[in-house]
Amino acid sequence: MSEIKYTWQDDSPFLDERLQSYANSGCYPFHMPGHKRAPIEFPNPYSIDITEIDRFDSLYHANGILKEAQQRAAEFYGAKETFFLVNGSTAGILSAISAAVPRLGTLLMARNSHKSAYNAVYLRGLETVYLLPTATEFGISGSISPAHVAQALDDLPQISAVYITSPTYDGVASDIRTIAEIVHAYDLPLIVDEAHGAHFALSEEFPESALDCGADLVIQSMHKTLPCLTQTALLHVNSQRIDRDALENFISIYQTSSPSYLLMASMEQCIRFLNEKKDEQLAKYLPQLKSFYKKARNLKHLKIFDKETCPQESCFDHDITKILISVGDSSLTGQKLYRKLLHNYYLQLEMCSGHYVTALSSLMDTPEGLARLLHGLREIDDEISLAAPRPASGPVILGSRTAKQPGQLTSNDIYQPPKPQMPIALAMEQPAEPLSLKASTGHISQEFIYLYPPGIPLVTPGEILTGKIISIVDQCRKLGLTVEGLSDRSNQTIKAVKS
Amino acid sequence: MSEIKYTWQDDSPFLDERLQSYANSGCYPFHMPGHKRAPIEFPNPYSIDITEIDRFDSLYHANGILKEAQQRAAEFYGAKETFFLVNGSTAGILSAISAAVPRLGTLLMARNSHKSAYNAVYLRGLETVYLLPTATEFGISGSISPAHVAQALDDLPQISAVYITSPTYDGVASDIRTIAEIVHAYDLPLIVDEAHGAHFALSEEFPESALDCGADLVIQSMHKTLPCLTQTALLHVNSQRIDRDALENFISIYQTSSPSYLLMASMEQCIRFLNEKKDEQLAKYLPQLKSFYKKARNLKHLKIFDKETCPQESCFDHDITKILISVGDSSLTGQKLYRKLLHNYYLQLEMCSGHYVTALSSLMDTPEGLARLLHGLREIDDEISLAAPRPASGPVILGSRTAKQPGQLTSNDIYQPPKPQMPIALAMEQPAEPLSLKASTGHISQEFIYLYPPGIPLVTPGEILTGKIISIVDQCRKLGLTVEGLSDRSNQTIKAVKS
Repeated sequence: MSEIKYTWQDDSPFLDERLQSYANSGCYPFHMPGHKRAPIEFPNPYSIDITEIDRFDSLYHANGILKEAQQRAAEFYGAKETFFLVNGSTAGILSAISAAVPRLGTLLMARNSHKSAYNAVYLRGLETVYLLPTATEFGISGSISPAHVAQALDDLPQISAVYITSPTYDGVASDIRTIAEIVHAYDLPLIVDEAHGAHFALSEEFPESALDCGADLVIQSMHKTLPCLTQTALLHVNSQRIDRDALENFISIYQTSSPSYLLMASMEQCIRFLNEKKDEQLAKYLPQLKSFYKKARNLKHLKIFDKETCPQESCFDHDITKILISVGDSSLTGQKLYRKLLHNYYLQLEMCSGHYVTALSSLMDTPEGLARLLHGLREIDDEISLAAPRPASGPVILGSRTAKQPGQLTSNDIYQPPKPQMPIALAMEQPAEPLSLKASTGHISQEFIYLYPPGIPLVTPGEILTGKIISIVDQCRKLGLTVEGLSDRSNQTIKAVKS
Repeated sequence: MSEIKYTWQDDSPFLDERLQSYANSGCYPFHMPGHKRAPIEFPNPYSIDITEIDRFDSLYHANGILKEAQQRAAEFYGAKETFFLVNGSTAGILSAISAAVPRLGTLLMARNSHKSAYNAVYLRGLETVYLLPTATEFGISGSISPAHVAQALDDLPQISAVYITSPTYDGVASDIRTIAEIVHAYDLPLIVDEAHGAHFALSEEFPESALDCGADLVIQSMHKTLPCLTQTALLHVNSQRIDRDALENFISIYQTSSPSYLLMASMEQCIRFLNEKKDEQLAKYLPQLKSFYKKARNLKHLKIFDKETCPQESCFDHDITKILISVGDSSLTGQKLYRKLLHNYYLQLEMCSGHYVTALSSLMDTPEGLARLLHGLREIDDEISLAAPRPASGPVILGSRTAKQPGQLTSNDIYQPPKPQMPIALAMEQPAEPLSLKASTGHISQEFIYLYPPGIPLVTPGEILTGKIISIVDQCRKLGLTVEGLSDRSNQTIKAVKS
């Protein structure tokens, strides 16, 4: 391994200048966006940043070059119709749910959904019924069970649509084909948040795309896994189960009336790149990625999530571009591993949690990048063998189905949400009462509490704050785990519905 | 005037390539964005397009470089707090109204508001009371009268907030100082859509900014009039009359969870440019612009809206960067003038209507640009003097307060909206009945009908489709004027609430 040149002179308080320092730093990006700062030819952005003038069409009434560009995207993905989004998958998720479920209606949704899905629920005043992902040994959320979908639809005739996130942030893909069949048997639409899977259609090495599995609406972030600028996304329409005019109207509601031609040019460029060069690019990339996984199996302490060697996780498919690296039985925490990779190896990872880190790979990765990651992990793995054994009070293993040590949290604790007492919007718009965590037990929450990972809300507005939930929040806070959602950032008080 | 080189080879069906052709075409932009494709130094966008990694903060929980960048913007504008928006002023308007008015509450709003304000009304299920702008001789909407605001607030205690667009797309600024005093006497918040006035704070030659006039929330598009990339905007908070946490929450609801660092870098760069170079830039630009207006007064037929020579329009202030060019008493239409300027002089204007065109100027304009516009207008003006006199059935003059010819529309026809029968959201979500225009008289509309200019809805969902409205739509359609809003793009049928 040649010496890494790391020259980040972080001397500027100005964002634009600091971004340039980072670009020139030699730090390798194992994070979004998926273009990995590749030297893609692109003009000075100011030179092509225009508004809706002659011959450049109008995004929300497209009938010229933007209609054709969107058709090219639809053809590439095999969708009936595709909408360009310039406000991210967020805009697609808000629009899809808004168009599929009437105001005050009921949505059957995966509990481990992105915040934007809960925001759609709030905006439209929806009632929610949740699908809980399975727990996994690795400590991430698993997949959504088709049987649970069938059961819920059978029990609850008031459901208007089904919403599932697949793949998750961790790369877990559910069995969308079976789920779509079930949902369609009830003549309902299935919406799939495939924000992290815009690359699935590119190769059989990736899980099957929800579009190919029969989902009705599929939302994909282009920037997350493809060579495209951040904030770009696609909303694919695959059936007539959702009113197309209503959908288009919501897209224009949730997005700026001055959409960026820069972002749209990037989408056009990306689709052309995929059409012309994906095979060549994948032929280089996939063998490198597989070789990485193969070599990483020799790590002694760090454990890489690897579907080929994890038969017990076979209830779902996994996207190999999401490289999940567990600290295993070592004395490291996810945070420490993350910092070592950043500060000693100049590898900026996507995410760290209590017991694992995520390196986001993409088809734009270079052999040098993956080699540097392997090198770093090997050196850290070697150091670990010299380190002290793991202390008795190690990090919380949320992934385990049963506690390994007294006091440890288990998946069961977070995969059993309390029954809603009222819809999210109703709870959020009642008079508020800020309570200390301890005093809040038994009250109805006005806030979300999220735990990362797995990114599932422990509680949503309208649900009872049970003693168990409060004790989990309290433990996580003490352990320095990431608890998010409360307006009191110190996580000491929570807003409850005034009783 | 040296020969203009116009070399647009419009040979590409691909958006990114066509944008580059346009950039190199020699066509001068009298349209948004305000950076006018100036050669602003900027790195390859892919090189600095990152996500929320270490040291780059997080927009919706900013406490590092993004907090500081937003503070620099707040300082420049003299706001208490400023939020960067990456989903345009649209996101700011949706957030401001959502935070200021409870669900199902009542908003006092200018009738000539941007579609996003009506969208906020729809999303939140609000009742609306309208402020009608004054009509003008020139045919544009005038200002909002403080007396009307006072009257409405006195009559209707259920109003939660007041929303006004100032300046309008045409550059008309209302007396925000007086309006703010009135609104605050009722202890209500005043929201001002200043999307077209982000440059007001730069010079006393422009109307006074709503921020300086005491408005509580002010939304500004940076890209419209400043050297900044499209989709960038600012939401300024100037008081504590609106719940700050609720506002921040709505901003994160209506915007992507992956905000573009490219757009944010452009905002940072723009604020620094203004801090360091605005005086120098304005010292060059303003004399050029004034000289343009002075010379344009000699045009014989075309008439430029000119506050110095239009004392009758003195009830409002006008932004001189919006150059409104009327066809006057000539035989031209706005459309013909617009096309002549584009095809013969390679000047791409912002907008054309039946009787006038808009050239959007900005502090980034070059002397060459304004000289080319003056040259083109002079030549066209000279041609007109040789042309046949205006035919009897000339274009509709919407601006006149009284019809000049039988059958012509007058401002009064569109400044008297029908009384709402039900809130916008309720009407839009009733079962629909598509009716031919003729058959729709007396029914409750489910759709908006906009007429451009002046961009005021003739009717909104929930209002009765009167015979007069239908006859206006019918006349406009026959005359080829821009009628928008109906889902039937041929404007032959309208969706009414099923009776």
